[in-house]
Parts: sequence; C-alpha cells; structure tokens
Amino acid sequence: MPKARLEAFADGIFAIAATLLTLNLAVNEHSPLAGELMRIWPGYAAYAISFTTIGIIWMNHHLLLHQISHTDRFFLLLNVLFLMLIAFIPFPTRLLALYINADGAQAAAFAYGITLTLTAILFNAIWRYAAWGRRLIRQDADARVVSGIGRSYLPGPFIYLAATLVALVSPQVSAGLYAAIAVFYVLESSVFGRE
Amino acid sequence: MPKARLEAFADGIFAIAATLLTLNLAVNEHSPLAGELMRIWPGYAAYAISFTTIGIIWMNHHLLLHQISHTDRFFLLLNVLFLMLIAFIPFPTRLLALYINADGAQAAAFAYGITLTLTAILFNAIWRYAAWGRRLIRQDADARVVSGIGRSYLPGPFIYLAATLVALVSPQVSAGLYAAIAVFYVLESSVFGRE
Amino acid sequence: MPKARLEAFADGIFAIAATLLTLNLAVNEHSPLAGELMRIWPGYAAYAISFTTIGIIWMNHHLLLHQISHTDRFFLLLNVLFLMLIAFIPFPTRLLALYINADGAQAAAFAYGITLTLTAILFNAIWRYAAWGRRLIRQDADARVVSGIGRSYLPGPFIYLAATLVALVSPQVSAGLYAAIAVFYVLESSVFGRE
Amino acid sequence: MPKARLEAFADGIFAIAATLLTLNLAVNEHSPLAGELMRIWPGYAAYAISFTTIGIIWMNHHLLLHQISHTDRFFLLLNVLFLMLIAFIPFPTRLLALYINADGAQAAAFAYGITLTLTAILFNAIWRYAAWGRRLIRQDADARVVSGIGRSYLPGPFIYLAATLVALVSPQVSAGLYAAIAVFYVLESSVFGRE
Repeated sequence: MPKARLEAFADGIFAIAATLLTLNLAVNEHSPLAGELMRIWPGYAAYAISFTTIGIIWMNHHLLLHQISHTDRFFLLLNVLFLMLIAFIPFPTRLLALYINADGAQAAAFAYGITLTLTAILFNAIWRYAAWGRRLIRQDADARVVSGIGRSYLPGPFIYLAATLVALVSPQVSAGLYAAIAVFYVLESSVFGRE
Repeated sequence: MPKARLEAFADGIFAIAATLLTLNLAVNEHSPLAGELMRIWPGYAAYAISFTTIGIIWMNHHLLLHQISHTDRFFLLLNVLFLMLIAFIPFPTRLLALYINADGAQAAAFAYGITLTLTAILFNAIWRYAAWGRRLIRQDADARVVSGIGRSYLPGPFIYLAATLVALVSPQVSAGLYAAIAVFYVLESSVFGRE
Repeated sequence: MPKARLEAFADGIFAIAATLLTLNLAVNEHSPLAGELMRIWPGYAAYAISFTTIGIIWMNHHLLLHQISHTDRFFLLLNVLFLMLIAFIPFPTRLLALYINADGAQAAAFAYGITLTLTAILFNAIWRYAAWGRRLIRQDADARVVSGIGRSYLPGPFIYLAATLVALVSPQVSAGLYAAIAVFYVLESSVFGRE
Repeated sequence: MPKARLEAFADGIFAIAATLLTLNLAVNEHSPLAGELMRIWPGYAAYAISFTTIGIIWMNHHLLLHQISHTDRFFLLLNVLFLMLIAFIPFPTRLLALYINADGAQAAAFAYGITLTLTAILFNAIWRYAAWGRRLIRQDADARVVSGIGRSYLPGPFIYLAATLVALVSPQVSAGLYAAIAVFYVLESSVFGRE
C-alpha cells in the first residue's frame, strides 16, 4: 500500500487545522477596534503557539514518513487517530485564547495540555509501531538514524504532561511553558539540528 | 483520464470534512468552563465517531482506487455524489452532538444514520460500477481480491440502515450503534485484517 | 513552468469551496428539530446544486488542463481570478438557501446567477487563451477535440445569464433553472458523453 | 529532504486561507437583502484584494521553489512562519471589510498593512536564506535569474510599509493603495512579465 495518499491526507489535515486557527480570532464589534486589537493579544499568542506547534509536528511527521518504505492498515489507523488529535487542536487553542485571563484559565490550559500530551503519545506510538523490528522501515535507513529518532521523540509526552500538570497550579505559567516548548523545538530542529 | 486528480480532490474533501468537525465544538461562555467542558462530552464522542468513520471510509476509498486502472466520466460523477455526502457529515454530526440529550434526539440520530446509509450505498455503487465486467479494474488485479472487496462492502448499507431505524425507538441506542460500527470497522480493518 | 502546482492549488480551492457549503446548513435551536430539518429543505437543495455544479466545473477544469502542456503567468492569473469566483460560490449559495422563500428571493437568485455567469465567462477565457493558436496546447492533442471543447464551453455563460435574468421575473423559476442546468450537465457529461 | 511535501503543505495553506475569505461575507438578515448586498461592497473589494494578493504570493512562492533543489530544517521553519502569516490574512481582511467606513478604519487598515509587510519580509528572508551562497539553489539555475528574483522581491516590504503608514493619515487611501499594489503585481507578473 503506497504512502503517497497518507501523505496527501495528512498534509491536508495539518494545513486545514493550522489555517482554521484564524477563525478563533474575533473582536467585540461594540468596542473601539484599536483597543480590541490590543485586548485580544492572547489570541495572537495562542495562534502563534498552535500554528508553530502544528508546523513542527508536520515537519517531524514528514521526517518519520521519510524513513518508512510502506504502510499497513494498523499504521494507517494509528495515523487516523493521530490526525484526529491534530484536527482537534483549534478547539483548545480557542479556549486558551479566550480564558487565559479569565475564570476558566485552569480548565483551558489543562484542556490544551491534555490534547498535546495525547498527540505526543500517539506520535510515539506511530513511530514505535513502524520501527519495531524495522516493520515498516526502509531497507536503506541508517540504524543510528532510526534509533536516534526514537530517542528524540520519547521525551515529548512527559514534557507536555509536566506542563499540563503545572496548569493545576498556575495556568499562566503553563501557557508560558507551551510557548517555551514550541520555541525550544523550533531552535532544536532548525538551529542546533543543522550540521 | 488519470485518477491522480480524483485522488487529490477526494483527499481534500475527506481531510476538510474531517477537520471541519472541530468547528462543531463550542462552550457556553456564560457558564464555568470546567463544567462546560464536561457537559459537552457528546460533542467529543460525535467528533471521534465521525472522524473515525470518515477515516475508515477514506482508507477504503484508497483501497478501492488502488484496484482501478483508469476512470471515466460516470465514475467521476458517482464520486462527486459520494463526496457530496462525505462533505455533508459535519452537519448531522453537529445535530447529534447538540440534541442527543435533548428534545430532537430522534431526529438528530435519524439524520445522522440516513447520511451514513446513503454514503454506504454510494460507496457500493462506485465499486459495482467499476467492477462490473472489470470495467475500470487494473489488468493485474487479483480476481479473488476484487470479488472479496465487493462482498466486504455489501453489508454496510444494511448495517447503517438498521442502526438508523433503531433511532425511531431509542436515539441513544442508535448513537451507541454508530460508535460500535466505527469500532468494529477499526478492529476489522486493522487487527483482524492484518495477515 | 509545470502545471502540477496549479492543479494542486485548484484542487484545493475546489475541494474547500465544496466542503464549506456544509457550514451554510443551520437550524434554529429554539424550534423542534424534526420540523426544522424539513423547513430548511432549500438549504439541502442549494447544497446539492452548488456541490454538483462545483464538481462538474472541477471535472471540466480537469479535462481542460489535460489538453495543456505548460502554463504561463497570464494563464496562471486567469486561473487565480477563476478560482476567486469558485471560492465565492458558498456565499450566494447561503443567500439562495436562506432567502428563496422570503423577501430578498430576487436579490439572492440574481446574486447566485451572476456568480455562475462570471465563472462560466472566466472558464471560457481560460480556454480561449490557452487554445488561441494552440498557445499552451499539448503537441499531441487532437485538433477536433480542441475545437470540440471550445464549442462545448461556449453556451455556458449565455445559459447562466438567461437563468439569471429570469430571477427578475420569478426567483423560484430561476432557482429551478440552476438545478436543471446542473442536472443537464451531469447527464450530458456522464451519460450522453460516454461512447 | 524532498520539497514535494512542503509544496503540498504550502498549497494547502494558500488554498484554504484564500477560500476562508468567503466566510467573511455576511449580510444583516433584518435588512432588505438587495440593499445589504450593495452596502457590503467593501467586503467584496477586500475579498478580491486579499484573494488576488494570496494568489500572487502563491505564484511567486511557486517560482521560488522552482529554483530550489532541496530543503533543510531552517528553510522549512522559515516557510512555516511565512505560512503562519498567509493563514492569518483572513482576519485583517475581515477587519478591513467591516471597519473601512466606520470608526476603527485606521486600526483595520493598519492591521492589514502590518500583516502584508511582515509577509513580504518573511518572503524575502526565505529567498535570501536559500540563495545565500546558492545554499539550496538548483545546480542548473541561471545566475541572472537568481539575482533577478532577489532584486524583484526586495521592494515588497517597503511598498507595503509605506501603504501601512499612509493608514495613519487616511485609512481609505491606504486601502486604495493595497488594491493598487495587487493590480500592479498582477500587471507586472502577467502582462509586462511575458516575453
């Protein structure tokens, strides 16, 4: 079974989920616009964090599929479940933007973190399933690259779970951690990762 | 006529219909958020059922086109009608999420089931048209695979029609059946289907 | 300049415009659902007419690009303007669904017709530009096919303009004509067109 | 790392951002429709300006990637940030459409201009990064084409910044300039640019 249509379906979900984030931005039409555009700054921040996070996951999914020679039905299923979480991201992003400075900040930051934690768990599951006994791995894939990828994906769920639990103490710190994680992955993948 | 653009158009519709399901999720901003996030659990369930269902139909459409060597205009037309139903799914999904615990549960569950029944009928029509006398089937396609696919698609419309009619008695049982059908297809395609 | 990215961009616009039509469907939450689902039947009809129309235009755009060997910047520009009209279709579709049985039916049917008339004009412009002196036509394209395509696209703008003008007398008849045109193109392309 | 998936992701974002512009169009259902359809003309203008602008940027991104032989992670990252701005465009477009004849025109025109200025800056950054020492440029790319592209992209940020600053004096003139810039790029790329 060729992987080209999985790539097309996945690229579609990534692109749409990222672009739908725009619909979360809205101003109150009964207040002066200039003030409104400043008041909704958490909306811009949430947009940037989620778009960047989706972009980084897309890049990593791209790299993961690059090591794969073929797919099977269970691999496709894991990907469908994974993409179900990617497509879900605009919803907790809207919550984070609307509630971070209001009652409900804790629930919003918690919902956001749980979503990304589950996404990271499924991303690992996809890779473990593919790499187990090199089930779906390309013949010519370098063994060190394969084990290196596995190691680099492992901390993701724990990092997001930790930031999620911080939401129970301080939702604002938790939101700052989500931003910091995105910036870290950006630097790690694009600056440190270049050799 | 090459099938690549049909695949691109279809993958686009599948991906967008699945991702638009997110827009169905909304909370009442005048109630405490944590409670709202629990109250709307039918929304999560409907999201998961419809996303999984669309994902499975996408996988099967993928497999179907894999057996096809070329397309003709009537085949394209059947696909357009089929995709019209796929793109419609977010609407009854929203109804199911909003009304399953309210007046209107029956109408919502019925609308959801009718949509999926018609989708299954059109899926069968696409396959019958392509497979009739091996009209559009690849030269090298295995005859047993071709007849096996035809048999495996046949029960779909009847299963969904049965679950739809159950809505007239109990919408909640009907919704449970839609979930069970999705889980069954997931297991059937990914666990039992691997050999 | 390769035509593959134009196809990808166009397939994306077609697929998204068609799928966004779903967002036009909405019920009044303060009325019983079963009655609402019947009251909004113009919404289903408008959805079906517009989805089918977009699907047929997609099929014809597919056939048009199949005769093209390469693109140039003016051809890309015409396509961008054409796709601007395709992406616009969900708006007059929503108007037609909401207003066909209300004050404003005339304006809604007129807006719908003008949009499709302009779309048909731009479709012809794209083809004329490509076919003029076989500017962008494939070397191996059959001259009779090329002139046949040109003739078959010519009536489109006049047919839609006529249906649009009917809206000034009777919007309901005009809407019926839009449906009839879609059915005619479906039959013409898929049943009569098969030989 | 192949550039095909970047193209697929980018084409998806461009197509979705352009098509979501339609959702900005809305009429007040309590006023006569014909009058409403005329009153919202800034909405059509903003739709046309933004769709054309996104279309031109898509064409230029197409040409840019045509000169590239491969990608690296920093290049992908720059593209993700660039696409974050493309996906953002529907939001200031909605503001421009809603506020250009109201209080808030200045803030709306300013927000629109800032978005396009930043987009133009990132477009230049993508090209500079790729072209620096011909880092990612195709072996067979013509040196004059490469330096010509660099020169032609350079004025973009300054042109948009100037139009943005005009918004502080007259938002309406600023909006006219955004339209004029789009028309200029259309003519420049498709009429003058043909030889």
